[in-house]
Amino acid sequence: MPQCEKLRTRGLAEVTLGCGRETQRSRALALGVPHFTTQEAELLTSGHVDLIIILTSMPEHARLAKVALRAGKHVLLEKPLATNFQDGKELVELANRSERHLVCGPFTILSPTFQTISAHIARGEIGQPCLARARYGWAGPSWGEWFYKKGGGCLFDLGVYCIASLTGLLGPVQRVMAMTSVAIPERDVNGRKVKVEAEDNAQVLLDFGRGLFGVVTSGFTMQQYRNPALEVYGTSGTIQMLGDDWDPDGYELFENQVGAWKVFKETAPDWPWTDGLRHLVECIAENKQPLIKPDYALHVLEIMLKAQESGREGRAMPIETTFKLPDFCEVKRDEPVHLQHDRTREHFEQGKERKAGLA
Amino acid sequence: MPQCEKLRTRGLAEVTLGCGRETQRSRALALGVPHFTTQEAELLTSGHVDLIIILTSMPEHARLAKVALRAGKHVLLEKPLATNFQDGKELVELANRSERHLVCGPFTILSPTFQTISAHIARGEIGQPCLARARYGWAGPSWGEWFYKKGGGCLFDLGVYCIASLTGLLGPVQRVMAMTSVAIPERDVNGRKVKVEAEDNAQVLLDFGRGLFGVVTSGFTMQQYRNPALEVYGTSGTIQMLGDDWDPDGYELFENQVGAWKVFKETAPDWPWTDGLRHLVECIAENKQPLIKPDYALHVLEIMLKAQESGREGRAMPIETTFKLPDFCEVKRDEPVHLQHDRTREHFEQGKERKAGLA
Amino acid sequence: MPQCEKLRTRGLAEVTLGCGRETQRSRALALGVPHFTTQEAELLTSGHVDLIIILTSMPEHARLAKVALRAGKHVLLEKPLATNFQDGKELVELANRSERHLVCGPFTILSPTFQTISAHIARGEIGQPCLARARYGWAGPSWGEWFYKKGGGCLFDLGVYCIASLTGLLGPVQRVMAMTSVAIPERDVNGRKVKVEAEDNAQVLLDFGRGLFGVVTSGFTMQQYRNPALEVYGTSGTIQMLGDDWDPDGYELFENQVGAWKVFKETAPDWPWTDGLRHLVECIAENKQPLIKPDYALHVLEIMLKAQESGREGRAMPIETTFKLPDFCEVKRDEPVHLQHDRTREHFEQGKERKAGLA
Amino acid sequence: MPQCEKLRTRGLAEVTLGCGRETQRSRALALGVPHFTTQEAELLTSGHVDLIIILTSMPEHARLAKVALRAGKHVLLEKPLATNFQDGKELVELANRSERHLVCGPFTILSPTFQTISAHIARGEIGQPCLARARYGWAGPSWGEWFYKKGGGCLFDLGVYCIASLTGLLGPVQRVMAMTSVAIPERDVNGRKVKVEAEDNAQVLLDFGRGLFGVVTSGFTMQQYRNPALEVYGTSGTIQMLGDDWDPDGYELFENQVGAWKVFKETAPDWPWTDGLRHLVECIAENKQPLIKPDYALHVLEIMLKAQESGREGRAMPIETTFKLPDFCEVKRDEPVHLQHDRTREHFEQGKERKAGLA
Repeated sequence: MPQCEKLRTRGLAEVTLGCGRETQRSRALALGVPHFTTQEAELLTSGHVDLIIILTSMPEHARLAKVALRAGKHVLLEKPLATNFQDGKELVELANRSERHLVCGPFTILSPTFQTISAHIARGEIGQPCLARARYGWAGPSWGEWFYKKGGGCLFDLGVYCIASLTGLLGPVQRVMAMTSVAIPERDVNGRKVKVEAEDNAQVLLDFGRGLFGVVTSGFTMQQYRNPALEVYGTSGTIQMLGDDWDPDGYELFENQVGAWKVFKETAPDWPWTDGLRHLVECIAENKQPLIKPDYALHVLEIMLKAQESGREGRAMPIETTFKLPDFCEVKRDEPVHLQHDRTREHFEQGKERKAGLA
Repeated sequence: MPQCEKLRTRGLAEVTLGCGRETQRSRALALGVPHFTTQEAELLTSGHVDLIIILTSMPEHARLAKVALRAGKHVLLEKPLATNFQDGKELVELANRSERHLVCGPFTILSPTFQTISAHIARGEIGQPCLARARYGWAGPSWGEWFYKKGGGCLFDLGVYCIASLTGLLGPVQRVMAMTSVAIPERDVNGRKVKVEAEDNAQVLLDFGRGLFGVVTSGFTMQQYRNPALEVYGTSGTIQMLGDDWDPDGYELFENQVGAWKVFKETAPDWPWTDGLRHLVECIAENKQPLIKPDYALHVLEIMLKAQESGREGRAMPIETTFKLPDFCEVKRDEPVHLQHDRTREHFEQGKERKAGLA
Repeated sequence: MPQCEKLRTRGLAEVTLGCGRETQRSRALALGVPHFTTQEAELLTSGHVDLIIILTSMPEHARLAKVALRAGKHVLLEKPLATNFQDGKELVELANRSERHLVCGPFTILSPTFQTISAHIARGEIGQPCLARARYGWAGPSWGEWFYKKGGGCLFDLGVYCIASLTGLLGPVQRVMAMTSVAIPERDVNGRKVKVEAEDNAQVLLDFGRGLFGVVTSGFTMQQYRNPALEVYGTSGTIQMLGDDWDPDGYELFENQVGAWKVFKETAPDWPWTDGLRHLVECIAENKQPLIKPDYALHVLEIMLKAQESGREGRAMPIETTFKLPDFCEVKRDEPVHLQHDRTREHFEQGKERKAGLA
Repeated sequence: MPQCEKLRTRGLAEVTLGCGRETQRSRALALGVPHFTTQEAELLTSGHVDLIIILTSMPEHARLAKVALRAGKHVLLEKPLATNFQDGKELVELANRSERHLVCGPFTILSPTFQTISAHIARGEIGQPCLARARYGWAGPSWGEWFYKKGGGCLFDLGVYCIASLTGLLGPVQRVMAMTSVAIPERDVNGRKVKVEAEDNAQVLLDFGRGLFGVVTSGFTMQQYRNPALEVYGTSGTIQMLGDDWDPDGYELFENQVGAWKVFKETAPDWPWTDGLRHLVECIAENKQPLIKPDYALHVLEIMLKAQESGREGRAMPIETTFKLPDFCEVKRDEPVHLQHDRTREHFEQGKERKAGLA
């Protein structure tokens, strides 16, 4: 909702209708959704709705996105695109034929820090990339049984970010190898014991061709880390993102010819991982193509599915889909780094005379 | 205004009236101030105003705060309390007699990280404090000539935070020694050359008694730093705040008996340095005494004035005022650190089914 | 030689004889080797030799170690044990029957920091390990063509450390998957172009069973890193070694119940990666079994060979050998960390009266 | 002794004679000193002694250095030059007239990292320096009562490094202000209680003129730190040394025009803080003037004495002595940073065939 509020303030979009189960009505209204329906058809046929945000459980994603596109709506879809390849493929084919946009999470490639890193690599500042690492994990949710059941798992929930980021940086993957396991067979979810059926622990190797390999380490089995989110090793340097790819905290660049690490502080500490909504709305308003394309989302989905398969079968799986890396415009800073003094978000209008009375 | 908006949402306060110069009217209205006046009297006599926020130029602070208190209003005052000791002292005497609250910036002692550090020290975890350091500086503003003129200077604008934090942690100061200078005699301000008359560079020693000394390093002469904001060295350990005291980024604790640094990540990354407003409004609503008391603000003011004097005269200056350290309630965490997974501020309601339509 | 010098000072060992090619004679004598021969037989039959250090090219390792053991000598062998599994296996069988010790590099498990980390894990302080990462790489040598030819490669030269460390921490591996490549097809070696035939780039997955997976990232393709050498993620915490496993720089421990990272500084900054020699000599002198056993070296060798095979064949390879984790005695610190004041290695006898004259 | 050993290996110097009290004889001989005397006269008249290293208790420093110079010996003197200004001044006057060298500790300005930082500042890469900080402290010795008695204190033992480094970087000081205290009135020394009479806690302000101020924070009251050793803030950047100035661990440079911190790793991790001996012996051998001159040592001594006086009297003290900053030759790296692969100190001759036998 804060994202929606910002878009409203800018005059770009407005929340008009919420749709869900009856039990969600009061919460939605409390959050400021002006109308609420439990009837999907009402949403699809409403003349006041141009864009539908799909935040349902995973198995519903593909079906809902299809009907929304067919109803002439733009669609913002939470990851994953679908829970099986066939559904994902059909959805992408539909989207590619459609005049409406389908933008599917995650949106990590939209962050200014990601795009700046991408630009460094594209300019050849680390030479030819050879090795990459990405990690994302945490202790795992204590709500939502489905995280631990078929169709869930740490790859769909966590590894998906790493995979989206590495492919967004380095391009399409040709082959996948993985080890996956249920490391913790039983979990407490909403206060009761749940048997874990989907992988909660994974190491995934990605072969990008050109001798370049990435690894994704992910699980509901990582309590805490203190290391870079993304690392790329090239023939003349190294670059790495700090923080998380969905919440970057600056980046570091080593170039052989410089001989020192350059540490860049985060210039967009408030970049939200929900930024896909802003991006999609702006693309609609400005009549541009989104950077996050359906082909890319399908590629990420295939990698996850093949990683799960490789984990079961113990062999490398070829990847059939591909996508074209978007052309990022490098983010230009408005002012020098040393003059970016206040990174906090809200403050009095500093240094300017003003009076106000509160009652 | 975001602070005000939050208080409004919570039903605690509402902006009713802005007061300033005619040239500020349109801006205030644009920011959402419902009414605006250029007449101070209208503000003071309005029945719709309980609390006045004073954000004027520094020389007006003391006078306005006095008339506001006399008019029966609570007052939130930007630092400094006053620009000379006599005005500050009279204001504090008035406030102490008044039934209304006077809360003066800076508000660094309100941050959860500050209060947690304070609790570690109070529990004796670093032993008896012996040495402390604080620093705050940047390249300096390119707007607001008054920063560089009499009544301005880096102590009133920057050092004030360090002094407020060190005294807030370690108690009142008995003696001050300082070196101050104009390191950069001419500045570009709003596109024109300005002769610098107030100190833009300072090192201030603070004698807390008990053999405990602090130092404040401050200036419009620090382009960037990469070190702790506050450091306190005790007889059995060390504690330090990372980030800035007005924007903490976690803290680190070394206890001799543990033999390792404990690194605590920031638990309130969105704590705003304008938090004094929230605090004051809550104190009014709950009929409590603010933690930031007039005596404390006067003590901070005297230290700055005596530091400037010591800088001119080259000798230690005794401090006459004192204050009592507030009793902080230690901040309790709601959940274990490793379960604080998403530090970002705005996001979809993760893991919960919801649909919304935007038009 | 500094290692030898220390052992000599302690009265434990003495260099008596060097053996090599004629071209190496002058260098050996310059380094302080008292006698030198080009005749292997002279070395093997010498009554003044108890222990032979084998530092030859890799293909010679297994054969030389065998003849040395058969000649009744203890053997310290540079990694790898052998360049093929059959040779390694025969050597280990011979060593296991022998009354002499065979200790093969790398020796990373001997460092105090490694053993302390091992003790933390063994005490359950991070819970059940689930995921691990190790990395080691650099730009690659510009000498020694054999690094880039059959029998060389980054796994034998670099990855071997990671594999030795992860298995030393977490126990034997059951299954391996890997991606390997020649990322840089041509290298400058000793001033001339060399075609690269052995892998210079690798990602290796290790399946330890129990749902626990490790990954080794290694290559002559990593210019620089700034991240932990080893990371282990468990069900209630994380532990990681800083620096390199062959040159540790302290370690960091996160326990869920503590809620902070504990950062431990390096207590043995001068631990040498050649420490196997000291260990072996002490074991001989004290009549103890070395911690680094032939079975462990064979296991590490098999993992490397199978990783190369997996890289070629694209499927998981089972590991047939196993070993028993040694029982490390936890390293006790002599004095508290905060009293370990001078980490440098050589200094005047501080604080003690002394005079000396130099001529 | 390791320093001496290295010089001996290089053919530059040899330990010929030790001189001390009878109780020190056995220790000196054990350390490898070939002859030992308790007769100062024997040392001074020996034809086998060119250079005398003075490591006695502080009150003896000046007298011994004088007789040694008069006897035609070069002198390496542990800090401080003297324990009072008059003795120091006479010694320096004698040394300046002498044809022999007097080199007095500390030797921090000799480290490659220090000299590299100095070169960055000299090239104007941080603009005009305005503020500086230095710190050095620890829990304090539990041996040597004299540390805590008149003539001892934390400035002579610890602060002296900071003062030597800041003046070595930024030039002579014109004025000093300080706060000093006995923070811990009683100490355990060699197992018994000792009353502390000399300052164990100090903050010292240094006025370098040109509006540039430094602060030194020092004490036997600092258990541990995690911050830079030296920080210099200039009008267009910041530079700071990591580790300790007597044991540097790299440095960091921020230049406004670069907009990122450059982090330089330590290139001389084994630089010993006893390096003055090597320097002096090389200067004698090559007939050069030492970089560490008597005037500089006297300036450092005066600052410490005046800081103690300022601490007692509560006013700024002018500094009468001065010195000329040495011209450092910038240290050139032999090879690029990314090829400096093995920072450890002792190792097998890697990658080169060699065999050795130990008996």
